[in-house]
Amino acid sequence: MYKFRLHGLVADLWPLIRIMQMTGFFLLDYHEDMSFGWTSIRTGYASTVSCFMVIQYLLLFINLMKQAEDVNDLTANTITVLFFLHSLIKFFYFAIRRAKFYRTLATWNNANSHPLFSENQSRHHATAVGSMRRLVMNVGIGTIVSGFAWTAITFIGDSVHEIRDPDNFNETIFEEVPRLMLRSWYPWNALSGGGYVVSFIIQILWLFLALSHAMMMDTMFCCWLIYTCEQLIHLKEIMKPLMELSASLDTVVPHSADLFRAVSATTNAPITSGDGEGIRAIYSNQHDFSNFRLNTGTLANVNSGSVGPNGLTKKQELLVRSAIKYWVERHKHVVRFVSNIGDTYGSALLLHMLTSTVALTLLAYQATKIDTVNVYACTVLGYLVYSLAQVFLFCFFGNRLIEESSSVMEAAYSCQWYDGSEEAKTFIQIVCQQCQKAMSISGAKFFTVSLDLFASVLGAIVTYFMVLVQLN
Amino acid sequence: MYKFRLHGLVADLWPLIRIMQMTGFFLLDYHEDMSFGWTSIRTGYASTVSCFMVIQYLLLFINLMKQAEDVNDLTANTITVLFFLHSLIKFFYFAIRRAKFYRTLATWNNANSHPLFSENQSRHHATAVGSMRRLVMNVGIGTIVSGFAWTAITFIGDSVHEIRDPDNFNETIFEEVPRLMLRSWYPWNALSGGGYVVSFIIQILWLFLALSHAMMMDTMFCCWLIYTCEQLIHLKEIMKPLMELSASLDTVVPHSADLFRAVSATTNAPITSGDGEGIRAIYSNQHDFSNFRLNTGTLANVNSGSVGPNGLTKKQELLVRSAIKYWVERHKHVVRFVSNIGDTYGSALLLHMLTSTVALTLLAYQATKIDTVNVYACTVLGYLVYSLAQVFLFCFFGNRLIEESSSVMEAAYSCQWYDGSEEAKTFIQIVCQQCQKAMSISGAKFFTVSLDLFASVLGAIVTYFMVLVQLN
Amino acid sequence: MYKFRLHGLVADLWPLIRIMQMTGFFLLDYHEDMSFGWTSIRTGYASTVSCFMVIQYLLLFINLMKQAEDVNDLTANTITVLFFLHSLIKFFYFAIRRAKFYRTLATWNNANSHPLFSENQSRHHATAVGSMRRLVMNVGIGTIVSGFAWTAITFIGDSVHEIRDPDNFNETIFEEVPRLMLRSWYPWNALSGGGYVVSFIIQILWLFLALSHAMMMDTMFCCWLIYTCEQLIHLKEIMKPLMELSASLDTVVPHSADLFRAVSATTNAPITSGDGEGIRAIYSNQHDFSNFRLNTGTLANVNSGSVGPNGLTKKQELLVRSAIKYWVERHKHVVRFVSNIGDTYGSALLLHMLTSTVALTLLAYQATKIDTVNVYACTVLGYLVYSLAQVFLFCFFGNRLIEESSSVMEAAYSCQWYDGSEEAKTFIQIVCQQCQKAMSISGAKFFTVSLDLFASVLGAIVTYFMVLVQLN
Amino acid sequence: MYKFRLHGLVADLWPLIRIMQMTGFFLLDYHEDMSFGWTSIRTGYASTVSCFMVIQYLLLFINLMKQAEDVNDLTANTITVLFFLHSLIKFFYFAIRRAKFYRTLATWNNANSHPLFSENQSRHHATAVGSMRRLVMNVGIGTIVSGFAWTAITFIGDSVHEIRDPDNFNETIFEEVPRLMLRSWYPWNALSGGGYVVSFIIQILWLFLALSHAMMMDTMFCCWLIYTCEQLIHLKEIMKPLMELSASLDTVVPHSADLFRAVSATTNAPITSGDGEGIRAIYSNQHDFSNFRLNTGTLANVNSGSVGPNGLTKKQELLVRSAIKYWVERHKHVVRFVSNIGDTYGSALLLHMLTSTVALTLLAYQATKIDTVNVYACTVLGYLVYSLAQVFLFCFFGNRLIEESSSVMEAAYSCQWYDGSEEAKTFIQIVCQQCQKAMSISGAKFFTVSLDLFASVLGAIVTYFMVLVQLN
Repeated sequence: MYKFRLHGLVADLWPLIRIMQMTGFFLLDYHEDMSFGWTSIRTGYASTVSCFMVIQYLLLFINLMKQAEDVNDLTANTITVLFFLHSLIKFFYFAIRRAKFYRTLATWNNANSHPLFSENQSRHHATAVGSMRRLVMNVGIGTIVSGFAWTAITFIGDSVHEIRDPDNFNETIFEEVPRLMLRSWYPWNALSGGGYVVSFIIQILWLFLALSHAMMMDTMFCCWLIYTCEQLIHLKEIMKPLMELSASLDTVVPHSADLFRAVSATTNAPITSGDGEGIRAIYSNQHDFSNFRLNTGTLANVNSGSVGPNGLTKKQELLVRSAIKYWVERHKHVVRFVSNIGDTYGSALLLHMLTSTVALTLLAYQATKIDTVNVYACTVLGYLVYSLAQVFLFCFFGNRLIEESSSVMEAAYSCQWYDGSEEAKTFIQIVCQQCQKAMSISGAKFFTVSLDLFASVLGAIVTYFMVLVQLN
Repeated sequence: MYKFRLHGLVADLWPLIRIMQMTGFFLLDYHEDMSFGWTSIRTGYASTVSCFMVIQYLLLFINLMKQAEDVNDLTANTITVLFFLHSLIKFFYFAIRRAKFYRTLATWNNANSHPLFSENQSRHHATAVGSMRRLVMNVGIGTIVSGFAWTAITFIGDSVHEIRDPDNFNETIFEEVPRLMLRSWYPWNALSGGGYVVSFIIQILWLFLALSHAMMMDTMFCCWLIYTCEQLIHLKEIMKPLMELSASLDTVVPHSADLFRAVSATTNAPITSGDGEGIRAIYSNQHDFSNFRLNTGTLANVNSGSVGPNGLTKKQELLVRSAIKYWVERHKHVVRFVSNIGDTYGSALLLHMLTSTVALTLLAYQATKIDTVNVYACTVLGYLVYSLAQVFLFCFFGNRLIEESSSVMEAAYSCQWYDGSEEAKTFIQIVCQQCQKAMSISGAKFFTVSLDLFASVLGAIVTYFMVLVQLN
Repeated sequence: MYKFRLHGLVADLWPLIRIMQMTGFFLLDYHEDMSFGWTSIRTGYASTVSCFMVIQYLLLFINLMKQAEDVNDLTANTITVLFFLHSLIKFFYFAIRRAKFYRTLATWNNANSHPLFSENQSRHHATAVGSMRRLVMNVGIGTIVSGFAWTAITFIGDSVHEIRDPDNFNETIFEEVPRLMLRSWYPWNALSGGGYVVSFIIQILWLFLALSHAMMMDTMFCCWLIYTCEQLIHLKEIMKPLMELSASLDTVVPHSADLFRAVSATTNAPITSGDGEGIRAIYSNQHDFSNFRLNTGTLANVNSGSVGPNGLTKKQELLVRSAIKYWVERHKHVVRFVSNIGDTYGSALLLHMLTSTVALTLLAYQATKIDTVNVYACTVLGYLVYSLAQVFLFCFFGNRLIEESSSVMEAAYSCQWYDGSEEAKTFIQIVCQQCQKAMSISGAKFFTVSLDLFASVLGAIVTYFMVLVQLN
Repeated sequence: MYKFRLHGLVADLWPLIRIMQMTGFFLLDYHEDMSFGWTSIRTGYASTVSCFMVIQYLLLFINLMKQAEDVNDLTANTITVLFFLHSLIKFFYFAIRRAKFYRTLATWNNANSHPLFSENQSRHHATAVGSMRRLVMNVGIGTIVSGFAWTAITFIGDSVHEIRDPDNFNETIFEEVPRLMLRSWYPWNALSGGGYVVSFIIQILWLFLALSHAMMMDTMFCCWLIYTCEQLIHLKEIMKPLMELSASLDTVVPHSADLFRAVSATTNAPITSGDGEGIRAIYSNQHDFSNFRLNTGTLANVNSGSVGPNGLTKKQELLVRSAIKYWVERHKHVVRFVSNIGDTYGSALLLHMLTSTVALTLLAYQATKIDTVNVYACTVLGYLVYSLAQVFLFCFFGNRLIEESSSVMEAAYSCQWYDGSEEAKTFIQIVCQQCQKAMSISGAKFFTVSLDLFASVLGAIVTYFMVLVQLN
């Protein structure tokens, strides 16, 4: 069905891209029929969705303005407005910077493989695709459940709004409000009848679109990081066979197990008995890389292809050289991909953190007013958990990137480099130097996406909460 | 007696493992008779202990619930509950993740030695075993003393409980409570008679078990770190003779002391008198590594075994090469061991720090109410010192690991690498690069176990204390 | 016109230097006629300006002293005094340390170029000059606009000063004050008539001079950083052709594309079909450095000039060697330039940050009294924005320096070093090691000029503001 | 006079050591006559001094206990007691750990020099000795001035002590106190007459001894750091000639200036005109190391001594090799010296910082009560400035150590390593790796002695001061 241009990341992320196209993102590429007519229709659809999103958002904002007198209403409305600001920011951020997204998605279109490592590469690719689809599915389910929970909570409890009696400021009277998910102003009477039905349909549509807009963008970010991590694991796993290949080449050095046999044969030193065993054991300790299997067919063919002793060495040398080149070029490609991701998402992450911090501080204030388990408490906790889950999602994957990239040095160190050729050792050295700094995604150079960031956000909220509780 | 499978860390930690088995840990391995019957009996014992621990803990919790009205009682009970939460967490953590513990204990089962360095290795092994046994003994004594002190303090002062008069809220009346170590609820009357005796026996048993459960787990962690540190010291000490071996091999370069004699013989330059002495002195400055003795017998044998000038070099080259391999493989093994420890203990450390922080904050609150030296003050200070000692224990050893591992680079630098062969220099370079990052144990990636952590915990408590004193 | 000594940074910064000379800085060098007479006249001009600056500043200070009773007046006057303290500090800092400025400006006078990289060098030089002139223009316009806005706001609203009634301390009376930009004391009556005109002219002159003094010094700092960054980009861009040159030389290794052809010709292994393509593709993947063009004319000439196979190699070797030397020497020159900048500006930056922090804290206090949009609010916000913009300016460029310098390692890694000669690889290694530490400008060793600094300044102000709002 | 054993650091620090011996430190070594009799006399003297110090300190403490009711008196007395706790800690710290001090002082006894670098070495040694003596003199003068100022301030103002009237707690009465430097309890009446004279003499003696004890210990620490820094500068300066020596040896590479002449001679490429100049200019750019002069006599002799082309190279090779060894061994010696200093002073620094922090916090409290310029204000400010000066002294030199040691890498990079031999490049690489971490002195692993520490201490005091002012 989609056999036209599905390669690279676009193919891997196809379900996500399809969902994004359906929810109205300005993702106009990646269609079979790219004729002017169809493109216009798609542009029209995306524009309609964006107008819809903006208009309903403005209605929320008008309601915020109209209820600005009471501090509780103001806080609640501000939280709602900030909460959906995420969605709008991300939607329009994508629309404006979609060229960058296209470019990043195209990064892996022409990534070549190496005959020796293609099996490992395709295995990790499959793992990455699996993880990404699982993530998309989980986030999708989470979003739908959140949407329904939000809708459901509207029908629990009374639907009233506490306002000050304009005649007597010390008393509060209760005003009936429509059973809607969001407090919004409408030019029509939304309390009941047709007006209510229209408002309800608009809100449920808008709610699901807004939630999916925010989540889909975050999911794409996480998927990219998953892909990066799998590539890094691939690189780390092929390090060991690469070094073994280099060691087997090194004809100047005889095979280590033979070395001590030679020693013992000529000298009869006490090293042959007992102690000699110790040294041999050092040489032969096999490490567990059971999960790596060389394309032994190809390699064996190359090795056995030519009979000449020199010819063999030369071909193997070429193999090692090409393997090193493959490693370095792939690693550089990953570095470039990470820098592209940072470039594409940097400002969006900064905006996300800014709005989240303000919203979470306000939520901490709201949370101090919880005294029993009711609709109010559920709403506040729902907001809180959802917002934190959003932040946690990208912090978690950002942290995984930092860990995977910083453990490349350990992987390089843990292969048997001391047996490698001079060239291989220089390779190990330069790679170690480069990997002293972990790769990371920064939010427009102001913070680094990691679990540390999440912990500090959490810590700040706990602090605010405790200060506010004390003030109350 | 235990001649069946006692090698590696299990043998070194045998007293600790025996204590853990006796106090009811689910440590079902490491017995002589592993038949189904005996294993069932042991499982039954461990299960009984765990049920006992849980039931008494729940009784404490029920008491907490029943006394929740008064803020002082609530705080005191919460501290007690949190304090013993450690023990339960650690007990069940071990039960659930015992496979990881077995794996980590098995790490050193097949660690080979090198004929040249076996003497140094066995010396450091002995030091490590000594330190570990001393630690187990000290911690054991400390735990028993704490338990008896706790029991003793119960019999000092009046055994009353201050409660509000239900008729007149402004007055307090005193209720007599049983002289027990822990405020717990029992289905029977524990105030006196048989009920009291039963409660007392239950509590004293539970108290000692709970204290030892927590301490034994921490001690095992510390023992592993001690073992790691000794291995690192071993590696640092053999670095110097390794380099000297390499330097003595380097036949291209004549021995440095001879070099200047050659210069002076041919030129009669002023360098021969006085100044030449200076240079020779630079070459011959001997560093103090008196505490290292080569297995000179073995080495001399190898050296003198073959007479041919080329054969000698080749064998020595093999020796150097094997020594380097030994060093790197041993270092990698230590790195893997540390990563195993982190894997095994990570979440337990995180839980420990979380409960400790909450408990210590509550203790700071309790401490603000101390105004004179009495039973209350002693209890609070006892809790405080005990909790801090627990944290200090693993922070201290965690810090030692950081120090020992970060000084590997200095050790590599401080041997005479400039005389070594090209291969040895590359070895030094890669090792230096790898050791720029210190090894450390992280608490589930949220913090690093070090004295810094202890200082920050201490600082936080002092801050809380001062804020609370000011509020009072 | 200025054909006498205009080379290096002086020529590039000529507009800025001319403005500085005109606004009275003690910049006595860089004139066509350096005879004693002209120099004396210039010294006289600068001295007059400095006297003028100091006298008016002292009058401001006298006014501060006379209005010290009321806390609001005191705060407002202190802010003004601190604000202009910047200008005076910078003016006299330049006067005293002008030798260091001359030396830093002379750094690039004799910077040589390399025939292969002169095209790239001159392109980046042109970019730097363009950026610097644009910056000077923008800052100049900003300064002039600020000056006029300041003057304009004086004529809006009433020109009164609220003081306490000396008879009745609970009432305030309004005193008319002259419509001047700055509250200053004068020995004459400045309220109206000639006194007013004189005062106004003095103040407008002083205001513009003070603003330009502060801004011109900051601009010179930023221009130097711009120049440094462009030089670093130049170095990063020539890294890739340098490595390619080295790789093309490496006659021991046949060209990689040929390697696999050789393999396939002799063995007919399955590697030739399909899989072989993969390897060849790895070799031939071209990276985008479209913005770099070698002086191919020169290079081609050198390459084709001699026919002998050995002679060619030797000359190319010389080229590579000279290119590496060029790179390293240029990099060292940049390092020295940065250290000169730090040396020249260090203490000025420390003083700037100290006065700014105090002034911004006071402004946060003033900002808590804003309740509506009026002249007062505009003034406070104006001060705030202007002060923050000043700090942001040098933080932004300081951060750019850190980024550019820390990405030199990535640039070194991302060229095809695995094909380079042994010498080139060593070059890459040493450069990587050196570039692990980013270059940065420190404020007298107490802080580093970066966006982090700006964020922490901003965070401190927000904290102060919130604490003060809460206290009010 | 002292011709018996005055070499190494003892000779360099002779004035300081003499002062320490005279002020009663347990510095029993370094005397001409080390017979048992003289040693006993010296031990007796030091013991007497220590008894005197302790007894007067206890009297201060008794006074503190007796005046513990009033919070102001308590604070003032506590500050005094903490202030002199420094002196006692340092005095007895030295007494107990004098073996470590002897060992550290003996570090440089056998430091060899290298004929090529002896001139530079002796120059830097002389600079270090000069700086150290200047420091000892300045600190000595400062201590004496402080002592006299302290004594002088006693005779200014009334000598009364404000106490609560025991009959009427709302009134205060004034009790006359003796005009003594320190509030101390004596078994005799110290208000006037002989008792007063005795007390005064005791106090003035004790005051000067206590001040010098504290200062002399700090001065020795600073002197050691000065010596270390000069050694590091020496190492940095000889790096450049060392590399030039290596480059001049490298016979494989013809002299660079000749290289391009060869090119131009064979090809007549445009490179010869103009552009060729550029390259040659790159080669010949001379860097300013005017302050380094080789022992050219020695070197020339060695060079011209043998005529044979091969012999010359060999001897030069030996020279380079010995120079590298000299560099590395000297650097290691400095590293060992720094680690010795840290070992010797670590706990003393920790104790100093602990007591200082508490004392400075109390001083911040006292400072909030200053409202006018009087004796009280002077006393508080005097304490404050003196305490901060003490901390600043060792922070300043600790920071210098960090800077000098971290700039070794820059020094290694800034010499012409690209011309050096392969061995020299490896040397540069390993040195660079080692010097990525700066050397520093840590206070028992809890903090690092640097200007950052000073800034954080200052920041903490400012914070305390502001909080306390707000509370008042």
